[in-house]
Amino acid sequence: MNHSIEKCIEACLECMNACNVCYVASLKEYELEMLRECIRLDRECAEICSYTAQALGRGTEFAADICALCARICEACAAECGKHQHEHCQQCAEACRRCAEACRIMAVA
Amino acid sequence: MNHSIEKCIEACLECMNACNVCYVASLKEYELEMLRECIRLDRECAEICSYTAQALGRGTEFAADICALCARICEACAAECGKHQHEHCQQCAEACRRCAEACRIMAVA
Amino acid sequence: MNHSIEKCIEACLECMNACNVCYVASLKEYELEMLRECIRLDRECAEICSYTAQALGRGTEFAADICALCARICEACAAECGKHQHEHCQQCAEACRRCAEACRIMAVA
Amino acid sequence: MNHSIEKCIEACLECMNACNVCYVASLKEYELEMLRECIRLDRECAEICSYTAQALGRGTEFAADICALCARICEACAAECGKHQHEHCQQCAEACRRCAEACRIMAVA
Repeated sequence: MNHSIEKCIEACLECMNACNVCYVASLKEYELEMLRECIRLDRECAEICSYTAQALGRGTEFAADICALCARICEACAAECGKHQHEHCQQCAEACRRCAEACRIMAVA
Repeated sequence: MNHSIEKCIEACLECMNACNVCYVASLKEYELEMLRECIRLDRECAEICSYTAQALGRGTEFAADICALCARICEACAAECGKHQHEHCQQCAEACRRCAEACRIMAVA
Repeated sequence: MNHSIEKCIEACLECMNACNVCYVASLKEYELEMLRECIRLDRECAEICSYTAQALGRGTEFAADICALCARICEACAAECGKHQHEHCQQCAEACRRCAEACRIMAVA
Repeated sequence: MNHSIEKCIEACLECMNACNVCYVASLKEYELEMLRECIRLDRECAEICSYTAQALGRGTEFAADICALCARICEACAAECGKHQHEHCQQCAEACRRCAEACRIMAVA
């Protein structure tokens, strides 16, 4: 497996974990109303990252298209989570940005 | 949920099932060598169909992009399975074509 | 594929859909605070149902154990959703109960 | 998130990757006939590991049952892959064993 693919799988799995941590923590927050979109996009992003990591791991020939989609969803999640000051939101936004970058490299490969 | 989305979820789940049935049956066939690509694409297609059905079910705003990707993978699986005369391959190819059509409608919606 | 497996796959996919519909609708409800557990279990249940449907579809030899787990999660989701009067919660609870029944049959098979 | 859960997520994701690598490589091997069960169990194991990693990541209360199931499937995959001398099979068997151990700890926690 080449280095870009390995880095991308790793970034996807870290992003998936950060999204799931943020999802659970957001569902417990006092100001739940403000976090509706955050919760929704955390799941959205965790699911595509999980799918992408597995697809890359099994050597899919659709890597470019899959990674372009994954990057787009990661960017949307980063934008939403980035609005909130909770540490889990900020960490999630950061993981989403790193994953989007790794996916953009794969998308044009 | 609107009618096109419901039809597309249904087509994805039927395609997922047909791909999984074809996958298991192919792995048991005597002429295994000829079915390498069929087995590989059956899994590839089952996974994207499963992902797409769930994403549509939770009202994703990325439906057009997800369905475009799903259609592309379904078409690749239909092309491969369509080459083989096993009944499970022919039925899978048919389900893939129907799913690709339903996804193409969503992709331009 | 035998009849019990087919019925169980169908029940899992209907439950997955009902959970995803309830999940999205719950995230938009005015009384969000009361639905934290409902939202969380909707996702939990949708994920295990999706996994179980695919595993059964590919003829897993672990069907009994997988279905026992799926039944348990469906029952937990039915119990939570059953507490709420929203139509999506009631419909979800009903789908979860049907899926749990179908899974219990597989679990002792 | 406590240390055992983190270790278990990590072991699941490493096992998922090893299973997917072994799956792809096995599908390309000359002696395909002998690898039917290996290919089948690689997918089976990758799917449960992926599911388990996400479930643990979102703090599921069903961790003990999920990890018991995951351990059982990892052990079956380790037993099968361990029979074959291909490096990808041996590495996969090793990852499966480590994951089974991490899951057994969670299963009795």
